[in-house]
This record gives sequence, structure tokens and C-alpha cells, in this order.
Amino acid sequence: MSHPQIPPAPAMLPEWQVGTWLNAPQPLTLQGLRGKVVLLHAFQMLCPGCVAYGLPQAERVRKAFAATDLAVVGLHTVFEHHAVMGVEALRAFVHEYRWRFPIGVDDPDGLGGPSLTMARYGLRGTPSCLVLDRQGHVQLHHFGPIDDLVLGALLGRLIAGPAPHGEANGKANGAALEEGAVCTPAGCGAVPTHR
Amino acid sequence: MSHPQIPPAPAMLPEWQVGTWLNAPQPLTLQGLRGKVVLLHAFQMLCPGCVAYGLPQAERVRKAFAATDLAVVGLHTVFEHHAVMGVEALRAFVHEYRWRFPIGVDDPDGLGGPSLTMARYGLRGTPSCLVLDRQGHVQLHHFGPIDDLVLGALLGRLIAGPAPHGEANGKANGAALEEGAVCTPAGCGAVPTHR
Amino acid sequence: MSHPQIPPAPAMLPEWQVGTWLNAPQPLTLQGLRGKVVLLHAFQMLCPGCVAYGLPQAERVRKAFAATDLAVVGLHTVFEHHAVMGVEALRAFVHEYRWRFPIGVDDPDGLGGPSLTMARYGLRGTPSCLVLDRQGHVQLHHFGPIDDLVLGALLGRLIAGPAPHGEANGKANGAALEEGAVCTPAGCGAVPTHR
Amino acid sequence: MSHPQIPPAPAMLPEWQVGTWLNAPQPLTLQGLRGKVVLLHAFQMLCPGCVAYGLPQAERVRKAFAATDLAVVGLHTVFEHHAVMGVEALRAFVHEYRWRFPIGVDDPDGLGGPSLTMARYGLRGTPSCLVLDRQGHVQLHHFGPIDDLVLGALLGRLIAGPAPHGEANGKANGAALEEGAVCTPAGCGAVPTHR
Repeated sequence: MSHPQIPPAPAMLPEWQVGTWLNAPQPLTLQGLRGKVVLLHAFQMLCPGCVAYGLPQAERVRKAFAATDLAVVGLHTVFEHHAVMGVEALRAFVHEYRWRFPIGVDDPDGLGGPSLTMARYGLRGTPSCLVLDRQGHVQLHHFGPIDDLVLGALLGRLIAGPAPHGEANGKANGAALEEGAVCTPAGCGAVPTHR
Repeated sequence: MSHPQIPPAPAMLPEWQVGTWLNAPQPLTLQGLRGKVVLLHAFQMLCPGCVAYGLPQAERVRKAFAATDLAVVGLHTVFEHHAVMGVEALRAFVHEYRWRFPIGVDDPDGLGGPSLTMARYGLRGTPSCLVLDRQGHVQLHHFGPIDDLVLGALLGRLIAGPAPHGEANGKANGAALEEGAVCTPAGCGAVPTHR
Repeated sequence: MSHPQIPPAPAMLPEWQVGTWLNAPQPLTLQGLRGKVVLLHAFQMLCPGCVAYGLPQAERVRKAFAATDLAVVGLHTVFEHHAVMGVEALRAFVHEYRWRFPIGVDDPDGLGGPSLTMARYGLRGTPSCLVLDRQGHVQLHHFGPIDDLVLGALLGRLIAGPAPHGEANGKANGAALEEGAVCTPAGCGAVPTHR
Repeated sequence: MSHPQIPPAPAMLPEWQVGTWLNAPQPLTLQGLRGKVVLLHAFQMLCPGCVAYGLPQAERVRKAFAATDLAVVGLHTVFEHHAVMGVEALRAFVHEYRWRFPIGVDDPDGLGGPSLTMARYGLRGTPSCLVLDRQGHVQLHHFGPIDDLVLGALLGRLIAGPAPHGEANGKANGAALEEGAVCTPAGCGAVPTHR
């Protein structure tokens, strides 16, 4: 008699710890975004790869999808050069580069290490890209650049998925990423589950 | 007394009229591709926009998705300079640029006008991009460049859609393109329906 | 009795006012660079055009020419967001982006306006690009992006020009920029001459 | 007893063998271009590197310099796929891509090998780029892509060089390319000298 094989429950993220928001009239919460697909872009303002690839891609995503379907959220996750990447520096950076999506300043650990949410989410560096489905399940947990086609395909699939209160949720969204997707099990596995 | 509003049935394409295939061991048919999402890229080998944008994008799509989910098909739809874009010229072009997806040579009309399938499909020029869902419904009918994110989102949604023998097909796939999609009603409306 | 028409003497720059140097074992002076062609790139670390175009071009120039012929010098000319573009912020920026050429921190005016050398050189904004010939004459005084071909042509011509102690200097190097050059009379005219 | 070291005379090109010209009211000759710097761009219309890099660069050069100083000349040097890169095919290609500089069709050898001028000039493939100074000396003989800055520097230097009837010609123009230049001695040495 064999035990049934049960797929692992999709990872859920705990709430971020953000003291200051830019481009947002009021603080955002993961709970408040439930029902939308969420692209969470973790960056540092002095990270060349973020400036050249990650942030412009986040801005393109914001423009390509309806705000009712998808939310783009930036997260300033500082883990180096803390003294020169504070809130005022970030504010000038956002102003000059004209990023339009909401950006949360991840709370520092106060010890010069990675910021708090960065550590809790198991992010390996910047740029990192997390994608949550409408139920809040982590569907992508990626460090480094990611191709527009691949990211677009994932977002398109998730946007078409069931709304959070539908009964058939589990089936479609529990599906693992297809071959060729960039989510490493190791990376996703490091994410603390919400409970 | 009002008539009920019935959404128009999704357009189906008639079979292409292709006498010669490159990069294919045997002729492809739309019917034979049923069950897969299909990206049909119509181009001319001397069309600058095709060489710079359309064909490289088709190649990127081929690499980004599993061949079991999606088929990329090129269609050489000549409507000008017929004498110098014949099969042998195309063969040299494909060899030098190393395109790997199957390419069909659309049959000429013999009168110097647009090739036969190009006319039947209502293509306005090159590059044109058509996307069919697993049931063969036209979900995109686009002339000109299209963004990787937008195209990726559509392909990702359709790949996740139901297989052709599922009963719930009509619902998900009959949905019109969302706001912001590039399929112009005029363009799609020009597509002859199958039977 | 008519006065003879004498062409205006080529503009000479006064020394910059730089308190801190990065990527340089000791302070650089214009006088000390005499004999080489000099590309002076004025930028701000939070200026998107500088990060995307100006600084990478300065780095390409550094690599394309022999250090015995040409010196690339960066000048951090802050005129806004002073509080977050101090020396330590610049140091982190230079470290992360791996700029290799010497960069001088232009002295602030202490009043929140353009830095001192920026004002004295009549720079209109960032990125600005000044090119000096081997004698120190200003041959280009340009605000905004400039094409690699055009910049390369000017540098190649000046590098081939006479060394500073040759007697025939004036002739070749006093020549105005050819048609199509980007130095605006207004901009150049604002440059104070060196006694 | 030592022999004096005499630098090798700069290579001169024999006239090209071109039966048909596009974008030119009448045939061009090297002799007729004497006095201008000449950028000779050898390409094939089905060569991806030519279409992506070489031809656009030639067009940029044409726009960046005064026609009285520099002539850009294309040379269609076919060495493969002869049947599909004839004059009519080239004409359609030039029309569609809107190349504006004169293009000569290098005479074929009639045996399916490299075209005649290509062989006489010792070109290794396409794209190839030759630069002649105002006296007609070969100053660059390069196969493959070449950086805009490096090419611009060479052109700027040569344009500033003496006109063909000046007595001081030899000195400036006989100078070898500086360190970092792309002309390989082997490549240049393969060029047949005139006379």
C-alpha cells in the first residue's frame, strides 16, 4: 500500500517589512494585493544590473498589463553601501529615472547586513524577481536577468488563472513551472511559508 | 423586440497553400498542429523589419517554449520583388541566418500580387504575426512589430489553456483579447472563416 | 581704416577646482596633462543619460586610445540632489559600475547651486563633454549625447596633431570645428579664457 | 655594414572591376576619388553581419562626414550563392533597406568563386572595410566588425591629412596605424600594389 504523492504546497510569502513607500498614496501589503498577480522587483539603486535591466523591465511590465490584473511593486533591498542608499538618495534616484510603480524601502537590519525582507524572502542578491499568483503563491523566485518572453508567458498564464475565491484554484496554480522556467527549487524552498 | 447579442465565433484559418517547406521533414498542416499553440510568422526575406525584429523574435519564441506546447511556423509571403525572392534565394537566406523553425513558401498568385495564403488570411504586410490557440482559433492577427512581453503573455495564457478535446474549450479561448492587445478588429475581421 | 580680422584665440580652460580624486594616485591638473588630448566628461551619478550613454562612452574612449596620446577625465559636477551625491556615494557608484578613468569631485559652491568648475566652464548640464587638444585648446564643448563616430573623428584628428612644443601648432589646431560639429558658439563663448 | 631601414611603401589598390553601379549617376573610379578619404565597404546582401553591422555603419559614416572630405563606396563582392545575389536581387535589397551610398557590383569570376575585385584586393570575407587616405594609400584593410570610435578616429585623422598635391604627404600618411588598430600586416600585405 503506497502513500499518495502529494505535491508540496506552494510557498506563501510573509508580509514585507517596509517603513517608507514611494509612488504610493498609502502603504501596500501583500494581503491587500491578493487577487492580483504581483511582480515584486527587488533592487538597489546603485546596482548596475538593476538600472540597466531589472527596473526598466519592471516599468515595461507595468505598462503592458492592466493595473486591475497585475501589480508591480519595487522593493529597495539594500545589503551594501548602506550609508549612501538611504531613503533620500532613493527618492532622488526614483525622481531622476521616473520610475512610476510603488517602491517600498525594505527595513534595514541595523547591523549592515541584508535588509529584513530580503533575508526573510531568501533573496540571493539584486536584481531579484518574484512573481505571485492571484492567491499569493510564489510562482517565480529568480535572481538575475530574465527574458521578457519567459516572464511575459508566466504573467499571461497567471493573469488568466482563477480568481482567489474560485473553488478550482489549486489545480491550475499548483502546477509547477514548465521546463525552461527559471525558478530553482533551492531558491523557492528557502522562502518561509506564511502561517 | 431585441435580438440576442451573440459574440462572433472565433475565426478559424483555412489551410495554407504551401508548395515547398524548409526546415521540415514533411509538409505541415494547420490540422496537424491542432492541439498546440501556433505562432505563424509571415515574412519576406528582403523585408528589413522582418530581418531585424520579426524573424529573431520567432526564433526566440521557438527557444523559449517547449515544442510539445507551441509550434513556430514561418510563412514566406511574397508580395513584391517576386523574381528575386524565389525558393532558392530563400534557401540561401535561411541557411545564412540559421533560422531553425519550419518555413513554408506561400504559393504565388502568378500575377505578381500577394501570395495566395497571404491574401486569404487578410495579411496587410510583413512582418505579420498570427497566434492560434490549441483549438486553432485565431487569437492574434497583427501587422508590424510586437513587444516580447505582450506576445509572451498571450502565448503563456494560451499554452495554459485547455487541450482541444476538453469540453470547456469555448469559454476560456473564446475570450477576446484584453484591453491593450494588438489585434485590430478590422484585421481580424478580414480573416476568412473555415467552412 | 579697417581693423584686420583676427580669429578669436582658441579658448583655454582655467584649472578645475577638485578637492578629491578617485581612480588617481595623485591630483590631476590640466597643466600636467598638456601634451595629451583630453576628454573631459562632466557627469552626475544620478543622471540617467550619464549612466546610459556618457560614462560608458568615456570608458570606451579610454580603451580605444593609447594612454600616452589621450587622457579621459571624469568630473563629478553636482548641481542638484547635493545631499545624496557626496563623495562617499560617488565612491560606491564608481566601485559598482567599475569606471576606471580618474574622476575628480568638483568643489561645491556651498549654496546648493552648480559646482564651481561646472560654472566656470559654462557647462549647461550633464552629461557634458569637453575635448582639449594637445595644447589645451578647447576643441569641443558639448552638452548631451554625442555619436561615437563624430567623437572618434575629432579625437583621431587631434591625436594626429602637433605636439605642444612644435612651432606649427597654431595652424592646425586653431582650425574651427568642421560643419556638423556640435560645439555651439554660445556654449564655447561662455568659457573663460586662461589669461 | 647595415642596410638602411626603409619603411614599405603604402599599398595602393588597383581599380575595381565593376560593371554596374547603383546609387550613382555614373561609374566611380578610385582615380576619380583621389583627394578624398574613401571608405570602401565590401559586403554581400545575404551576409547577416553586413546587414546588422557593416552596412548601417557605412550609412552612419556617410551621414557623419562631409561629402567633400569622404566618399563611402559599397562593393557587392559575392563569393557564394551567386545565383540568388545577382544585380536585380541587389537592386531590390538596396531599395528596401534604403542604402544611399554608391554601390558597385563587383564582376564575378564566372567560375563560382569570389568576385574579381574581392580576389585582387585580398579580401578574406564579408563584411570587409578598406580605408584609403586622400592619396589613395590603404590605411585600413579589415575583415569583420569594427568599432565606431576606432573607425571614426582613423577617418578623422585622414581627413585632416594633407591634400594629394601637397609636398609633405608622405610623412603624415605613411605613418603606420597606431597600437590597437585593426589592420593586420598579413591582410594588408596581400593587397596587390598598383603598377
